Amino acid sequence: MLDRILRVNMTHLTVAGEPLPQEYRYLAGRALTSRMVFDEVAPWAEPLGPYNKLIFACGLLAGTTISCANRLSIGAKSPLTGGIKESNAGGIAAYKMARLGYRAIVVEGIREDDGRYLLVVSKNGGELRRADQLAGKGITEKAALLRQEFGTKAGLVLIGPAGEQRLLTAGIANNDPEGRPTRFSGRGGLGAVMGAKGLVAIVLDDTGCVPAEAARPDELAAKGREFHQLLLNNPQTGEYFPKYGTAAMMEITNAIGGLPTRNFRTGRFAGADNLNGEALYQTIVSRGGEGRPTHACMPGCLVRCSNVYPDREGRELVAPLEYETLGLLGSNLEIGSLDVVAKANRLCNDYGVDTIEIGCAIGVAMEAGVLPFGDEAAFLRLMEEMVNGTYLGRIIASGCVVTAKVFGVRRIPAVKGQGMPAYEPRAIKGTAVTYATSAMGADHTAGNVARANVKHHLKDGQVALSRGAQIKIGMLDALGFCMMIAPALKDSTILAEMVNARFGSTLSAQDLEQLTRQYLQIEKEFNRRAGFTSAHDRLPEHFYDEANPETGTVFDITAEELAELAY
Amino acid sequence: MLDRILRVNMTHLTVAGEPLPQEYRYLAGRALTSRMVFDEVAPWAEPLGPYNKLIFACGLLAGTTISCANRLSIGAKSPLTGGIKESNAGGIAAYKMARLGYRAIVVEGIREDDGRYLLVVSKNGGELRRADQLAGKGITEKAALLRQEFGTKAGLVLIGPAGEQRLLTAGIANNDPEGRPTRFSGRGGLGAVMGAKGLVAIVLDDTGCVPAEAARPDELAAKGREFHQLLLNNPQTGEYFPKYGTAAMMEITNAIGGLPTRNFRTGRFAGADNLNGEALYQTIVSRGGEGRPTHACMPGCLVRCSNVYPDREGRELVAPLEYETLGLLGSNLEIGSLDVVAKANRLCNDYGVDTIEIGCAIGVAMEAGVLPFGDEAAFLRLMEEMVNGTYLGRIIASGCVVTAKVFGVRRIPAVKGQGMPAYEPRAIKGTAVTYATSAMGADHTAGNVARANVKHHLKDGQVALSRGAQIKIGMLDALGFCMMIAPALKDSTILAEMVNARFGSTLSAQDLEQLTRQYLQIEKEFNRRAGFTSAHDRLPEHFYDEANPETGTVFDITAEELAELAY
Repeated sequence: MLDRILRVNMTHLTVAGEPLPQEYRYLAGRALTSRMVFDEVAPWAEPLGPYNKLIFACGLLAGTTISCANRLSIGAKSPLTGGIKESNAGGIAAYKMARLGYRAIVVEGIREDDGRYLLVVSKNGGELRRADQLAGKGITEKAALLRQEFGTKAGLVLIGPAGEQRLLTAGIANNDPEGRPTRFSGRGGLGAVMGAKGLVAIVLDDTGCVPAEAARPDELAAKGREFHQLLLNNPQTGEYFPKYGTAAMMEITNAIGGLPTRNFRTGRFAGADNLNGEALYQTIVSRGGEGRPTHACMPGCLVRCSNVYPDREGRELVAPLEYETLGLLGSNLEIGSLDVVAKANRLCNDYGVDTIEIGCAIGVAMEAGVLPFGDEAAFLRLMEEMVNGTYLGRIIASGCVVTAKVFGVRRIPAVKGQGMPAYEPRAIKGTAVTYATSAMGADHTAGNVARANVKHHLKDGQVALSRGAQIKIGMLDALGFCMMIAPALKDSTILAEMVNARFGSTLSAQDLEQLTRQYLQIEKEFNRRAGFTSAHDRLPEHFYDEANPETGTVFDITAEELAELAY
Repeated sequence: MLDRILRVNMTHLTVAGEPLPQEYRYLAGRALTSRMVFDEVAPWAEPLGPYNKLIFACGLLAGTTISCANRLSIGAKSPLTGGIKESNAGGIAAYKMARLGYRAIVVEGIREDDGRYLLVVSKNGGELRRADQLAGKGITEKAALLRQEFGTKAGLVLIGPAGEQRLLTAGIANNDPEGRPTRFSGRGGLGAVMGAKGLVAIVLDDTGCVPAEAARPDELAAKGREFHQLLLNNPQTGEYFPKYGTAAMMEITNAIGGLPTRNFRTGRFAGADNLNGEALYQTIVSRGGEGRPTHACMPGCLVRCSNVYPDREGRELVAPLEYETLGLLGSNLEIGSLDVVAKANRLCNDYGVDTIEIGCAIGVAMEAGVLPFGDEAAFLRLMEEMVNGTYLGRIIASGCVVTAKVFGVRRIPAVKGQGMPAYEPRAIKGTAVTYATSAMGADHTAGNVARANVKHHLKDGQVALSRGAQIKIGMLDALGFCMMIAPALKDSTILAEMVNARFGSTLSAQDLEQLTRQYLQIEKEFNRRAGFTSAHDRLPEHFYDEANPETGTVFDITAEELAELAY
C-alpha cells in the first residue's frame, strides 16, 4: 500500500505529494488528523490564521466497498472551541481520496486576497485553480457547477457562503453516491478554516486510477463478508437503523426526559410525536415520490440510516433529515413540524452551517426573546436572515456562545465553546460526561451512550460508561468507520482482521485500542498546550443547579469524578 | 476606624451590614475586591449568573480630601475575559462610601424578573428600591432623575442601557464633584454583571454622617500636606498633567510609532496633530465657554488631569476627553477630528460602554469592511446604531473578540478577551508585557511603562520594567490612589505614613509592597482555577509575525521570558 499525503499551501499556491511517514502507517481518520494537528499546528495558532492547517484523512479501509468504512475525517484547530477538532461524515469523498492514493490532504497557509480557489486532485496529482466564479454561491449551486465541469462521479468537498465568510458554524460538505452535497463534517467551524484558506472546493476525480491491491485480497473479501453478515444480523444495524435512521433516537430520549427542549430547559417535548422516527418514516412513505426512508450515504453501506425527505408533492426537500437536526432545530426550539425543520435544514445545508450549532444558537436567541419559542414563521424568517447574511443572521451563524454574549444570555448549552447535540445532559449523564471531558467539546460523536441499558439520569457508572464509549467510537473514527456499526460489534477483532488483510499487518484488537487511546491522549495534550485545563472539563453552571423538570435531576458528577476519566 | 461591609443580595432583595473581617483590615481598593472575589466567587461561576459577585471598594484614605485618594475599585469575575477583574475610576462615590463607613459593598445573586432596582445607602444603612422608572434610560437621564430625588451631593454609581442589556462592553459610571456621571470603571464588562443583578444604580447619601476621626489626625494632616507638596513640585503631576491631561501621551506614542492606528496595523497616525494634547488644549482654550482644560474628578485632586471639552458654541460636549478614547476612537479608526471623537465619547458615556473596547471592536469591523477606516459620518452612524441597539450595534457593544468572530477577522487586538488600550504592543513592549501577563487582560492600568525612559521597541529589560510597574501601580490600586501620582513618588513611604496616621498602624513601604504582591498572586491563582494557563499569557499571533511599519519591530519577547514575570 503506497498511501501518500497531498500537501497544499494556499499562501504560496503550491501542491505536492509526499510519502506517508512510516510512523503514520496505521494512522487514519481522526487518529491521523489529530496526530498531524498535534505534530504540525502550533497550539497558539489563531484558527483562522496562517499557522492553522486543515487536514482531510480517509480510513484504513477507505476505497473499498466494505460497508461503513468510508468516513471522511477533517481536522484542524477549531475556531469555535480554540481546541483540536475532528469532524467526520459519510459520502464518497474518502472513497475517492483513497482510490487516488492519498491517506491525507493537508491544506496550509491562508489567502488574504479574497480570491477563491479550487483544488483538483486526479491521477496526475493535485492542482489549484482560481475559482472566483464559485464565490458566494450556495453549496447546491457550487456542486452543480462542479458536476458540469468534472462529471457526476467526482468526489466533491465544499464549503458554502458561511465558510467563505469564516463564520464559526460553517461546516464542510461532501457528496453522496447520487451527488447530493449534503454529507456534513459540521462541527467546530472547520468550514471557516477552509474559508480562511481561500479554498472553496476540492474535486476528487479518480478516473483512470488503479488502486493498489490489498495484501491479502481473498482474506479481505472473506472478512468483509463476515463483517457484513454481522451488520445484517444485528437487529439495530440490520433492521432498526435502515428503517428509522437516526431519528428513532427521539422516542428514546423523549421517553427518558432527555430530548433538549426550549433551550435545554427541559427534556420532553409535547410535539415529539410529530418529529420522531415513526413520524418521519410514515411521512416519507405516505408522501412517496422522491422520498426514501432509507438510503446509503457511502458506497456499499448496508446500514443505510440516511433518508430522503420529500415535500407534500413528493419532491425531495432535504436528504438526510437526522435526529440531531430534529432535536436542535425542532424540539429545542419547540418547533413540532417535520416540514419546517426540513426547510430549515435545507437552508443550513445550502449555506453550509452545522444544524446542531445553529439550533443551539437560535435556542439562546429565543431564550433572549429575539423570537418566540415555537413560532414556525419567525423561525423560518430567521433562517432566511441567516442565509441572506443580515447582522442578526451573522450572529446566529457565529454559534450559540457568541449569540449568548450578544444577547446577554447566561444559560448557554455549550462546552468548550461548542453547542450541545440532542442529548439533555441532566437526563443522559453518560453522554454529558463525554461533553464535559472530550477534547472536542460538547459532541455526541465523541462517545454517545444514550442507547446503553443503564439508568441514564443516575450518576453511577457514567464516567466509566463514557470512557468506554469514547474509546470504542474513537477506534471507529480512527479506522474511518461509521459509528452506526457499533451495536453490531462485540469487539473489534473483525475490524483488525480486515485491516490486516488489506495491509498485510498483524494488528490485534488491543493494538487498535492502544492506538486509539494514544491519539485521544494526544488530543488532550494539544488542548492542554492551547490553554485548556480541568476547569474546562465541566458543564455550564446551570445544569448543576437547575433540575431537569422531567427527571428531577441535576448534573451531579463532580469535577473530581470527571477527572478520573483518562484514556 | 470601624469600616464595614454592606452586603446586598439581589436574589432575596436583602441588605445587611457586617463588620470588616480582621484579615481584610488593610485591604482596600483592588486588593480588597480581588481578595473578596477570590474568597467568595467560585472560579467556575458564570459571570452573568447567580454565583458571581460584584464588589465595590474604596481606598484606605478614602473619605479624606487627600489628593487622588478616592478611586472607586469595582471587582468581579469578568464576562469579557472570564477571569478576575478590577476596574477603578475617580469621581465622588468612593469618598461618599468611606464617609458612610463602608470599605466595601458586595452585590450578590441575580434578578431574572427583568425588574430594575436601586440601592440607597445612607446613615441608616442600605435599602433596595424598585426602580423600573430608570429602565432603559441613558446614564445622563438616570443621573438627572436621581439628582432630583436625592439632591446634587449624593454619590451615584450607575449603569446605562448597555449594562441593563448585559453587553460585554458595559462599564459602571460614577459622578464627579459637579455631578457629571462620567467617571467610568469601563473595563471588563462589569456593567453587565451589575445589569444581570438587576441593579441599575447605587445612591450614596452621606447626609448626617460623621466619619470616624483618624487615629493621629494632626499627623495625617501634616503628611497630607507633604504629599501634596510632592505632587505640586513634580513637573509632571504639578504642571504637565494639569495642563494637558492624559492626552499629552499622544505626542509620545505617535513619535515612537506606538499610537494604535488602523486596527493596530501600524503605530503612527497622520492626523495625530489634530487629536493630541496640544490640539486638545488649544481647542478647549480657544472655544472657551464651558470648556476647561483642567478639572478635578475627585474631591481635593491637585493633578486635575481631567477636562471639559466644549463644542464650537462653547457648550460642554463631553467631560473628560482622554487619551485612551482619542487613541481607540480616533487614531485606531483613522478618525482625526476631536469633535467627532468627542461626540462618539458622549454617546458611549450615555449608553454606558467602555470607549477602549468599543474602539477596538469598531477597528475590527473596519478591518472587515463593515465601514471604511476614517469615515467620520459612517463612524457616527455606527455609534447611533449602537445606542439604538440594532443588531450591528449589539455586535459592536459585545466587544472586539465577538465582533471579530462575527465578521471572521483574524487580527484581534485583545489579550484574554479584552481589547488593547492605546499603546501599540510592538512599539511599546513593556506595556505589551503587561497586556500579556496581567490577570486583567490587555490593560494599561495594570502597569503602563510608556513614559519610562527606555527604548520601547527593544525587548531588553521589558519584563522587569513591566513587573515593576505592575507592582507599583498595583500598590496605588490597593490604596485607592490614582495612578497619575506615580511620577511624583520616589518610593511609597509617604503613602505608608498617611495610612499609618489614619489607622494608627505601623505599615512600612515594604509591607505595602508585600500586600500588593500577595493580591497580584491571588488574582493569578483565581485565573488559574478559572482555567487560565501560561498559554493565555501571550499576544495575538499577528503581533509576533507582522512588523509595526513605523518601528520595523515585531513583538519578540518569548513565552519563556514572559513566564519569568512573577510577583
